[in-house]
Amino acid sequence: MKTIKCLTILCCVSFLVTCAATMQENTAEEEAPAPPARFFRGPRIVSPELHADNSVTFNLNAPEATEVFLRGDWMAGSPGGIPLTTENDTIWTVTVGPLEPELWGYYFTIDGVRVLDPSNTQMKRDGTRIENILLVPGEASDLYQPHNVPHGTVAKVWYDSPTLGLQRRMYVYTPPGYEKSNQRYPVLYLLHGAGGDEDAWTTLGRANHILDNLIARGEAEPMIVVMTNGNANQPGTNGEVAPPPEDRPEATGSFPESLVNDVVPFIEASYRTLTTPDDRAVAGLSMGGGHTISITLGNPGTFKYIGLFSSLVRGIDSTFTQQLIALRDENPELYWIAIGEDDFLYEGNQELLALLEEIEIEYTYVETSGGHTWTNWRIYLSKIAPLLFR
Amino acid sequence: MKTIKCLTILCCVSFLVTCAATMQENTAEEEAPAPPARFFRGPRIVSPELHADNSVTFNLNAPEATEVFLRGDWMAGSPGGIPLTTENDTIWTVTVGPLEPELWGYYFTIDGVRVLDPSNTQMKRDGTRIENILLVPGEASDLYQPHNVPHGTVAKVWYDSPTLGLQRRMYVYTPPGYEKSNQRYPVLYLLHGAGGDEDAWTTLGRANHILDNLIARGEAEPMIVVMTNGNANQPGTNGEVAPPPEDRPEATGSFPESLVNDVVPFIEASYRTLTTPDDRAVAGLSMGGGHTISITLGNPGTFKYIGLFSSLVRGIDSTFTQQLIALRDENPELYWIAIGEDDFLYEGNQELLALLEEIEIEYTYVETSGGHTWTNWRIYLSKIAPLLFR
Repeated sequence: MKTIKCLTILCCVSFLVTCAATMQENTAEEEAPAPPARFFRGPRIVSPELHADNSVTFNLNAPEATEVFLRGDWMAGSPGGIPLTTENDTIWTVTVGPLEPELWGYYFTIDGVRVLDPSNTQMKRDGTRIENILLVPGEASDLYQPHNVPHGTVAKVWYDSPTLGLQRRMYVYTPPGYEKSNQRYPVLYLLHGAGGDEDAWTTLGRANHILDNLIARGEAEPMIVVMTNGNANQPGTNGEVAPPPEDRPEATGSFPESLVNDVVPFIEASYRTLTTPDDRAVAGLSMGGGHTISITLGNPGTFKYIGLFSSLVRGIDSTFTQQLIALRDENPELYWIAIGEDDFLYEGNQELLALLEEIEIEYTYVETSGGHTWTNWRIYLSKIAPLLFR
Repeated sequence: MKTIKCLTILCCVSFLVTCAATMQENTAEEEAPAPPARFFRGPRIVSPELHADNSVTFNLNAPEATEVFLRGDWMAGSPGGIPLTTENDTIWTVTVGPLEPELWGYYFTIDGVRVLDPSNTQMKRDGTRIENILLVPGEASDLYQPHNVPHGTVAKVWYDSPTLGLQRRMYVYTPPGYEKSNQRYPVLYLLHGAGGDEDAWTTLGRANHILDNLIARGEAEPMIVVMTNGNANQPGTNGEVAPPPEDRPEATGSFPESLVNDVVPFIEASYRTLTTPDDRAVAGLSMGGGHTISITLGNPGTFKYIGLFSSLVRGIDSTFTQQLIALRDENPELYWIAIGEDDFLYEGNQELLALLEEIEIEYTYVETSGGHTWTNWRIYLSKIAPLLFR
């Protein structure tokens, strides 16, 4: 036991939340106790405040908190967070940075409870984790925003996966002008990591904005980007699609098989695609990099452009080597590997690189700073997209 | 000051969050202080547990909390929440219900701080508000789930709005089979309320699931559903699209004008639509109901199907009356008004009904229990969709 102040956060909520709390009527199943005076609107606080030098001030109204911490993506590599301080026992504040231009995520902890910044309506979801967004503008983050350029369409599309025995959902990006042209387009199959789903590459990866901007600059070919759900048992995003009702069966088979057997034929039948191996790329991050390895070793002539981002590398043995030799003999246009120097999957990637040297497959290796982060995966997509289909 | 226990919540997070906290590396801009022992994984707790009689138990691991409350949609009309109790000072629990079959939202407060249920990965967003989802199965909520039926596509589409001087984003639902048919389809323009955006009708309103299921049962005509962003100054959803970079201009003009001048022509040029007034419906909730009134009074012959859900009704005067008479003379196929008996907009809707009686326009009035809730708006969509284009 220790003596601290009783904790109440004054939530600065939109008028609709207030409406919802005060004006909605339904059959109350329970007799609610006296209100604990927590469901009201507090004063407006501006947070985060971005300053001219890219330092950032975070402010929080929490008059009954004992301690408040800020945790942001830019602290990756350091445990814990940065304490906020208060002079009037009401508004807590901290200034950090200057921060690099980037799409950062952050959250607060108030007396140990993880909370979103109530003054910031911008949020992002990574699987089950929700954080606030802070975009620090600059050259590096410029690709991640919707500029005044032609935009592609992102469609949430259902397809049958006989391999998995499931109806499943994917996202399909069609480039600007797709709807009105008669052109056929090459296709990038872009795979997410463990903990993510078909939503990850647009929400966190900003793949649609990156492609829109690179295409507008003439730095990438217009292409279709197919973003599947790599969790074989999941029809689609948790909460929006899953869990499925009871009339859905369990999945059978593996995701890499289903990508080749189900997804590629569906895409090539449903969209105006170019359909030679030269018109197909596959790339993935972490678990999706592992999927990319499985897919390309199992189908050596199908994709001429291959990208591994912070990839999970497993099971290098004689079969793996023989399959990689078969892949080499198909003359891929691009075998592209990127990883951060601090990534926990770094060693596995070095083993793969050694094997690539040994069997003399042509490859491109990009080593960046940082680790296993969406910062790096956005950068890797920005780097590989200009190399595809050219 | 009062004496309570120090508060720490043990977050039950996915392995990826653990990876992120422990394995990521980046340039740390700040020297982080010693970790406050808050960024670790706790034991697995199952919450919510749905029982056979549709009662529900909520569980939370919060060994240092002093008081925990549950607040759920089903308590609308009552302020405050229901207290959870603990016997071992670690796991807090409460059982509620039986609850009606419905797609409920809920959250906890821990010592006054609003938090999501860390054991439930299903979440929904309403504008700036994020809550956990609890789906209680049954006839009423059956339409809101993705059953094993053919599914339509939901596309996030950009369009130019010369009326507002902005590029903007909308969601377009195309019915199952659209991609492979040569058929032309009627169009429902479906508008959200204040605080929402173009995401609301699919995420909270489950419009795509409702349409998929009604079409599969033969209870609704296959139709295109266009879900715009009714906030004239917003290019699209906060966080995903907005705020825009500085190279975007401010909006000019009104949303109702832009719907007729920009959105309808764009949809009819871009999709295989039927294009007579008999093939166009417009419906909206709350602010979107107000928009629907403006749109149909200003363009009396354009939409033959009109739906007002818990609608904002303003400015009934002689001009309004003259415009409503002009609308009547266009013989709309359906003028459909629904509101809950406890809705705070009830009186305005009664005034409109009196005027409809006075000028002898044919209309349908549906009065339900409850108030200004997504529960009602899902029900209203489920009721009106079978009446359209038949």
